[in-house]
Amino acid sequence: MIEVITSLQNKIVKEVCSLKENKNIKEKHMFLVETYHLVEMAKDQLEYILTLKEIPTIHCKQYIVSEEILKKCSQNKSYSKVIGVVRQKDFSFVNDDTIVYLDNIQDPGNLGTILRTCLGLNIKNIIVSYNSCSIYNFKAIQSSEGSIFKVNIKIGDLNTLKELKEVGYRVVSTTLMKDSIYLNELKYKEKTVFVFGNEGNGIQSSIINMSDEKIIIPISNIDSYNVGISLGIVLYTYLNK
Amino acid sequence: MIEVITSLQNKIVKEVCSLKENKNIKEKHMFLVETYHLVEMAKDQLEYILTLKEIPTIHCKQYIVSEEILKKCSQNKSYSKVIGVVRQKDFSFVNDDTIVYLDNIQDPGNLGTILRTCLGLNIKNIIVSYNSCSIYNFKAIQSSEGSIFKVNIKIGDLNTLKELKEVGYRVVSTTLMKDSIYLNELKYKEKTVFVFGNEGNGIQSSIINMSDEKIIIPISNIDSYNVGISLGIVLYTYLNK
Repeated sequence: MIEVITSLQNKIVKEVCSLKENKNIKEKHMFLVETYHLVEMAKDQLEYILTLKEIPTIHCKQYIVSEEILKKCSQNKSYSKVIGVVRQKDFSFVNDDTIVYLDNIQDPGNLGTILRTCLGLNIKNIIVSYNSCSIYNFKAIQSSEGSIFKVNIKIGDLNTLKELKEVGYRVVSTTLMKDSIYLNELKYKEKTVFVFGNEGNGIQSSIINMSDEKIIIPISNIDSYNVGISLGIVLYTYLNK
Repeated sequence: MIEVITSLQNKIVKEVCSLKENKNIKEKHMFLVETYHLVEMAKDQLEYILTLKEIPTIHCKQYIVSEEILKKCSQNKSYSKVIGVVRQKDFSFVNDDTIVYLDNIQDPGNLGTILRTCLGLNIKNIIVSYNSCSIYNFKAIQSSEGSIFKVNIKIGDLNTLKELKEVGYRVVSTTLMKDSIYLNELKYKEKTVFVFGNEGNGIQSSIINMSDEKIIIPISNIDSYNVGISLGIVLYTYLNK
């Protein structure tokens, strides 16, 4: 299970480096995590790790490599002492009482922070639209602080929302429209999907049009809150009514 | 007011590039903003701008430069069409009813998002501890979306909090301690300072010890929320009681 790699040209090193790119993440159904904490969280899905020295608590193929190799493979500013190559898995999505739908979220830092916030608020069912940034983006995973390994994610679109409506879900969009109500006027209801939209353009109109409720957070001086902040405020307020 | 620069070695180009570094920002009491939106927001403090073509609505010295020069000076991934060199100004800090104190915030993206969130919630008085990242950090300003030009910032420390206590302020720290209360148990009180702490280590113990109240947000599955998310939830909930 232990092997030593010394060459920067080794095919394993090349494979790890190739997984910095989205198209290879997609093709190979694998992705990278860095730091012991995240590698540990990913341990059920680990293909192999690159590490400075053996880590007895982790049970997968371990390649012992030099600092130089880790620096080449790392996506952190200062290189990480361990890098894990992780298999993508199928999430078992559960239609829970509260679901979050993310429409075209582009910033991986926002996506990661959102996953972490949802998990902290005990919301484990998240639909990410096809046109959002990849959930396997390195920065998204780092910002999620490993939450990606503990939530259920479905990649979806408008039809996913339609299907949820058909089985009794209410769709609530956070968007400033003429007929939006204030967040604190929103009543609790079993089976609710909350939709949050793109950083610049908000939620696409076809989703707004099919929404049962549109809500806003009171706001002064600026046009909008950061999408992660909106989500935190909306979901905390809703769940603590 | 208009001058053309063609050389990458021009001393203005060198000055702009030097302002990418914190030590020069400190020494020269200037900082950089990019994109028309931010330059426009900074217009009362503009020293000069570098731009592809004259901008008639902006009244300061304008240097017309090439794409190549903008690419050299820009800190954005894709270069910006206009870069402004901005004078730092003294903020007129007002002791309002609700004040935010940021203790050792390190991530400039977090700092910027926090300033934007405070402004959106109409909290304009923010104390940033000396050991926090610079408010003039390029990423902080970008993430604040210009909020830095509309809030009142004081750079402070424990003594600033002590002085506020002496004039009747209650200090509320967001921190998980044995005697912390839940956020929704916190009563409204005129003159309150909310303290939020470092991303990894939270609030320093000397501040926790002098706090009148310690509060927590209910949390599951994870150790902590992102500091910007915490701040958004705490301040929205408090102000909408």
